[in-house]
Amino acid sequence: MSASIRFREQTAPFAQKLFDEVRQLSRSQWGVTRLGYSETETRVMKHIESVAVSMGLETEYDLAGNLWMILPGKNRDLPAIVTGSHADSVPEGGNYDGLAGVTAAMAVARWLKSEGIELERDLRVNCFRCEERGLFGSLGLCGKVKAHDLQRRHSADGPTLGEAMQACGVDPMRLTTGEPVMDLKKLAAYIEIHIDQSPKLDSLPDTRVGLVTGIRGCYFHLAVKCIGTTAHAGAIEYDARQDALMAASTFFVRAREKWHERVQAGDDLVFTVGICNTPSFAALNIIPGEVTFSVDIRTLSEETKEVFTEIFYEEAKRVEAEFGVRFEFDVPLYTPPSACDPELMRKLQDAADRVDVKMLRMASGAGHDGMAIEQAGIPMAMLFVANQNGSHNPHEDMQMDDFLMATDVLREMIEHFDD
Amino acid sequence: MSASIRFREQTAPFAQKLFDEVRQLSRSQWGVTRLGYSETETRVMKHIESVAVSMGLETEYDLAGNLWMILPGKNRDLPAIVTGSHADSVPEGGNYDGLAGVTAAMAVARWLKSEGIELERDLRVNCFRCEERGLFGSLGLCGKVKAHDLQRRHSADGPTLGEAMQACGVDPMRLTTGEPVMDLKKLAAYIEIHIDQSPKLDSLPDTRVGLVTGIRGCYFHLAVKCIGTTAHAGAIEYDARQDALMAASTFFVRAREKWHERVQAGDDLVFTVGICNTPSFAALNIIPGEVTFSVDIRTLSEETKEVFTEIFYEEAKRVEAEFGVRFEFDVPLYTPPSACDPELMRKLQDAADRVDVKMLRMASGAGHDGMAIEQAGIPMAMLFVANQNGSHNPHEDMQMDDFLMATDVLREMIEHFDD
Repeated sequence: MSASIRFREQTAPFAQKLFDEVRQLSRSQWGVTRLGYSETETRVMKHIESVAVSMGLETEYDLAGNLWMILPGKNRDLPAIVTGSHADSVPEGGNYDGLAGVTAAMAVARWLKSEGIELERDLRVNCFRCEERGLFGSLGLCGKVKAHDLQRRHSADGPTLGEAMQACGVDPMRLTTGEPVMDLKKLAAYIEIHIDQSPKLDSLPDTRVGLVTGIRGCYFHLAVKCIGTTAHAGAIEYDARQDALMAASTFFVRAREKWHERVQAGDDLVFTVGICNTPSFAALNIIPGEVTFSVDIRTLSEETKEVFTEIFYEEAKRVEAEFGVRFEFDVPLYTPPSACDPELMRKLQDAADRVDVKMLRMASGAGHDGMAIEQAGIPMAMLFVANQNGSHNPHEDMQMDDFLMATDVLREMIEHFDD
Repeated sequence: MSASIRFREQTAPFAQKLFDEVRQLSRSQWGVTRLGYSETETRVMKHIESVAVSMGLETEYDLAGNLWMILPGKNRDLPAIVTGSHADSVPEGGNYDGLAGVTAAMAVARWLKSEGIELERDLRVNCFRCEERGLFGSLGLCGKVKAHDLQRRHSADGPTLGEAMQACGVDPMRLTTGEPVMDLKKLAAYIEIHIDQSPKLDSLPDTRVGLVTGIRGCYFHLAVKCIGTTAHAGAIEYDARQDALMAASTFFVRAREKWHERVQAGDDLVFTVGICNTPSFAALNIIPGEVTFSVDIRTLSEETKEVFTEIFYEEAKRVEAEFGVRFEFDVPLYTPPSACDPELMRKLQDAADRVDVKMLRMASGAGHDGMAIEQAGIPMAMLFVANQNGSHNPHEDMQMDDFLMATDVLREMIEHFDD
């Protein structure tokens, strides 16, 4: 236990300093804003790299623009252990979503280096880009970005994903070839620490760390249009309207009812409309002829995804007929659910037992880079840390003691990976 | 009938030219955009003034920035006949909403001038400002602008109403004193031609002109906020959400059901949410913690307004309790319904009979400057002209023959006003 105590004592100030520095570099109106493939994200990664260099790690960037910080092992031909997370955040998000995992991984490398502990194989600390908007950094690593995704804009007046990548010196077309940008056989395992993002762990006083069993699959529409007929709000009677907003609202409410039915039937499922806007030229006294909205559907089960999306599109057709409107669905973005690797989970559980950290086995409701990694055939595992005030908002928070517990489990697991 | 034929023949090219010129001055991406108290509105009014000057009319601006074009009568001490409409349009609106009434009034003045017909009293052609966003030109004339309205913004990045007025050389505080900016006793009657804005007249092959019986009152909220809790879309289960968009959507759908019930019970009522937006920092994978929307409720009956708004706020409370959200309603903007003057309606009906134009008696669903005028104690009447493709949209249209019929009724009525 003495290694644990020393590790946690040394890691606390190191982590706090890095958290503070990165927050300062990416502070925005209410929280932090580190958009994927943005200048701020680049600035944050350059800072993290400089810290890694000062620790004596090798650093490199892959062709997707992801940062790698490497602690060489005894046998550099063996496939490496990968641990880390992502650099980006949602707009006006919290500081720890992504950054906690990168910092934990760096703390482990720093400990091994300072203690003179040489692993059997390389330890590669990853700092991925653009996780929040579709796992594009990790998909890029695996060569699995879809060409049509490069055309997507994440805000009406922002660049396309492809343009944003190019501005960061990345050739986006290279990432759509199906060919990974590095030899994935050289990666033995992927382990990521991340904040929980649900209220679950934080509701348990004695269990502050989660051992993830799997990650919900994500089924996204970035921008669905509902097209009705623009008309005068005061002069058109109830029956004579094709009101795009009333149609869209009715669709949301009915889809939510269907979601509730699936949950009551025992399915794992969440459904969210995160963005909904009338056009910029909309006005108080005009019946909206157009509404644009996003769709986020997640489940641990492929079958539930199939069942619910079918219900969902049927409900859209019903609303179209009832309101005289038309829905234009953009191509959905789908990431299937991912199971965590049982062997890695066992190693993590053993390590937790050794350092006396209680863990809750839990599914991940949020998507993570581990999904892209697992799809590419690399064994994947995750640890969650209790967080406060929800997630993807400026008040998102995490306690240092909880972070240190999870990080210590990671250290213990990596230190004894090849025992 | 020969005067009618000559008047219509002379008016057609005059009106067409003025329509084309003003369209050219205010053309925007899809239609025309002449926002109240904007540079474009000023440009359009300056052009209309130059046409009036070339016709030999006197012109002046009142302290609310409204343009007046005067054909002197025999006895200038008698209260004047007022006819005209407004210069502004909604964003991306059609060319004839407002402009038709100004053009018709100018055509009548032009005819009287060129025919050497001297009226008993002055004819004042009015061109009001900023009708679309709350009748602020005509309310300004009557000194009835509310101080808190001056703080309102009609778009997030635009100026306040007060700032926009100041940029047009208008002192906004003067318009809030309760004192009219001109002696309203000098105005005997207000008659306005306007496009119908409902599909009603255009559905009747033989009746293309409407004689308005009254104008629906308007009850507006410019920006209601629904406040919930921003949270991660993938990680928060059905029961743990305070989703502001789902709450707002449910509120819209239920208020629409209540509206339908009132309509089925025989009430005159329309209800519209014209604007609805998640915040600029909203994202696909974030449960929205905030939604902003507008409310437009109209009815010919004060009692229906009372009954429906009570139901409406009760429903909001129910949604608050059900979703764990909070609605913040801004101060409502209320204009009571206005009845048209029976004597002016009789004069218009007599004139229509003389020039053989069939008219439908109908309520106005849209609000008009006539409401502010009628509230100020000036007898008011309106004629509607059939229009196509709805209203407040770029495809809004009007046929010249229909316009000429209504304009000829106005001419005949004004020419014989004091007979």
